[in-house]
Amino acid sequence: MSLTHREREYLASQILGRLATLGPDGTLQNSPVGFRYNTDTDTIDIGGRNMGATKKFRNVRANGAVAFVVDDLASRDPWTVRGVELRGRAEALTTERAPGPGMSAEIIRIHPQRVIAWGIDPDHEGMHARTVDA
Amino acid sequence: MSLTHREREYLASQILGRLATLGPDGTLQNSPVGFRYNTDTDTIDIGGRNMGATKKFRNVRANGAVAFVVDDLASRDPWTVRGVELRGRAEALTTERAPGPGMSAEIIRIHPQRVIAWGIDPDHEGMHARTVDA
Repeated sequence: MSLTHREREYLASQILGRLATLGPDGTLQNSPVGFRYNTDTDTIDIGGRNMGATKKFRNVRANGAVAFVVDDLASRDPWTVRGVELRGRAEALTTERAPGPGMSAEIIRIHPQRVIAWGIDPDHEGMHARTVDA
Repeated sequence: MSLTHREREYLASQILGRLATLGPDGTLQNSPVGFRYNTDTDTIDIGGRNMGATKKFRNVRANGAVAFVVDDLASRDPWTVRGVELRGRAEALTTERAPGPGMSAEIIRIHPQRVIAWGIDPDHEGMHARTVDA
């Protein structure tokens, strides 16, 4: 498992993440997306209504570099942020069946290589980064 | 002005955005950040406690490509998303004085070149993209 129990718990509690991808022309894109942690493949899987036709899907097909962040403001006073950022490589895949109702069969599958987490583990204050096997 | 009144109003209503940058080694980073729209320069300015020492600041200094997204889930039922994504070039600057209390003098200043907005203008349903002068 690339992610700790607390990281997976936190991801499961959040609805949206933001996916950064790189276009063939060197421009970046940053998109809010729904997601799920796939325990079978130890990946983050991102589906969508028309995923195969999106620029982010084409970007990932051309260049697999991604950074995916899920974070929220747990409290404004005191100011308390928390989140998980996953950097790594992604695949633009066509699955045998759509990952959810109203979604197309294409998904973006993220293999984390670097995990940065903050504010989600009471036993570890501050920000923590680690490299994981791809 | 690169941004419409409604876009600026929406940005002012939100606390965090997510900034995607590109590292010299081709890896992406995606970071939650506070921000403000600077009316003098028509830019998004991003400060921070220790901005000059961050990887995102170094990334921007090495390669100005950025994508910055501010979005939220206005309603779960019915499912209503809204947001603004700004793609463009950024500068890693040192200002004469820090942009806010507890912040360092360094800022990331985003010059939007492409604006994508969704769900924030009742007169325009769906997603809208436009190119703006840099």
